[in-house]
Amino acid sequence: MKWCKVAIEGRAVYGILEGDEVVAVEGSPFETYTVTRTRYPFSSVELLVPVVPGNFYAAGVNYRAHFEWARTHHNSSLRMPAEPDIGYRSVNALVPGGASIVIPRDSSGPVEYEGELVAVVGKKAKHLSEDEALRCILGYTLGNDVSERAWQRTDRTLWRAKNTDTFKPMGPVIATELDPMKQHIAIRINGKVVSEYDTASMVFSVQQYISRMTRYLTLYPGDVIWFGTDGATEPALTPGDLVELEDREIGVLRNAVVRES
Amino acid sequence: MKWCKVAIEGRAVYGILEGDEVVAVEGSPFETYTVTRTRYPFSSVELLVPVVPGNFYAAGVNYRAHFEWARTHHNSSLRMPAEPDIGYRSVNALVPGGASIVIPRDSSGPVEYEGELVAVVGKKAKHLSEDEALRCILGYTLGNDVSERAWQRTDRTLWRAKNTDTFKPMGPVIATELDPMKQHIAIRINGKVVSEYDTASMVFSVQQYISRMTRYLTLYPGDVIWFGTDGATEPALTPGDLVELEDREIGVLRNAVVRES
Repeated sequence: MKWCKVAIEGRAVYGILEGDEVVAVEGSPFETYTVTRTRYPFSSVELLVPVVPGNFYAAGVNYRAHFEWARTHHNSSLRMPAEPDIGYRSVNALVPGGASIVIPRDSSGPVEYEGELVAVVGKKAKHLSEDEALRCILGYTLGNDVSERAWQRTDRTLWRAKNTDTFKPMGPVIATELDPMKQHIAIRINGKVVSEYDTASMVFSVQQYISRMTRYLTLYPGDVIWFGTDGATEPALTPGDLVELEDREIGVLRNAVVRES
Repeated sequence: MKWCKVAIEGRAVYGILEGDEVVAVEGSPFETYTVTRTRYPFSSVELLVPVVPGNFYAAGVNYRAHFEWARTHHNSSLRMPAEPDIGYRSVNALVPGGASIVIPRDSSGPVEYEGELVAVVGKKAKHLSEDEALRCILGYTLGNDVSERAWQRTDRTLWRAKNTDTFKPMGPVIATELDPMKQHIAIRINGKVVSEYDTASMVFSVQQYISRMTRYLTLYPGDVIWFGTDGATEPALTPGDLVELEDREIGVLRNAVVRES
């Protein structure tokens, strides 16, 4: 099942994707919902961010090849995480598929993509074992952890490097019933594949993260966890580019790149 | 004016504190609201977190005496921030005044208080100068940035050191029309003052933080910014303690400390 959130006459509505159509529902996948008889062509609806999370978690470095590349190219003092210690991103930066990534006027760059698998929490959860971990997950979507590498190197925190407005595209849909450790994610710039990888290469699995996190914190419906990217994240994004993340079971998250005017 | 959020017959209601009474409103201070004729004694209502923010910002180290103390006691490699680079906390950890701070079973501690001034955003804002910065603020409350120092030293991020469930008490009310740089904050444990300081000693002011943040990110109604603490944060909290933060214009944020059972 594929859930999407769309704007219909100025109102945010959840829908279920069936073939080329969106079937509107009353309610949401996080509560109760009723399927209506209203359908829209998927190609004509305005996509919204599939969920605005209460808590926005991000693993950061979670693939060895990306770690090796990042250490060589951007930060020689980077260390491989010894434990699944989760990090954070911020909701202000979220945009849906179809929206533009806006590079601030004073960014010297490079600004790079990071294509990531995102788990969307469906049920309140605490103290889950690794075996139980996936039970709290509604489904999965894609996230582009857009990163300004100059600020990432110099700033004390990741605030503007990774949380500048528009730097967190997420979508297009939340796909249920898939195995998060068996996904293949491809990133394209202007139609050309620039990176691809398998989520099987995660250093700490989705299950390991969720189990460790829920020892200390409660996961709530709508919370999201981004799981990091693999490999290099070059070439840098430049104004005029179209960047796409694709997973066969989730779909394509597509965003144009512009410079702040 | 003092805004509070209270639970009335299982429903969350905003109210205005007038003397010893809460006047219930329909709506919220972040949208439109209507004052009702319903009043409750403040002493009898159940306080809620005054706002659940969409974005939860925290300055971290923002007072010199706290920096010197923290470097000596907890982290010799700590550096004084060169710019107002904001950090983050997470909503899962919020609790209101009256709720307990729960120290996890496997915490070796010490677990310490950090009493902080909190700005609550009232209006959407971007690109504010320092002169304009306070215009977007609805008012101010208090926050206890409870911190598990062993995890703060060892973990890659602050996730469980500062964002374990119940580690972010916030309240009791949002007080409007006060000068954030002229507040005096006292912290008491079991009735005895253990720390007090003036917000005038901030390294980067409320205005400087807001101006710099809004160069890159949009502030939204309900977002909160915590401004750090001054001085030492000893003695450590132990089960059975009652920890109180007081500001004359905001009131008292009061929380008991227990050990996870």
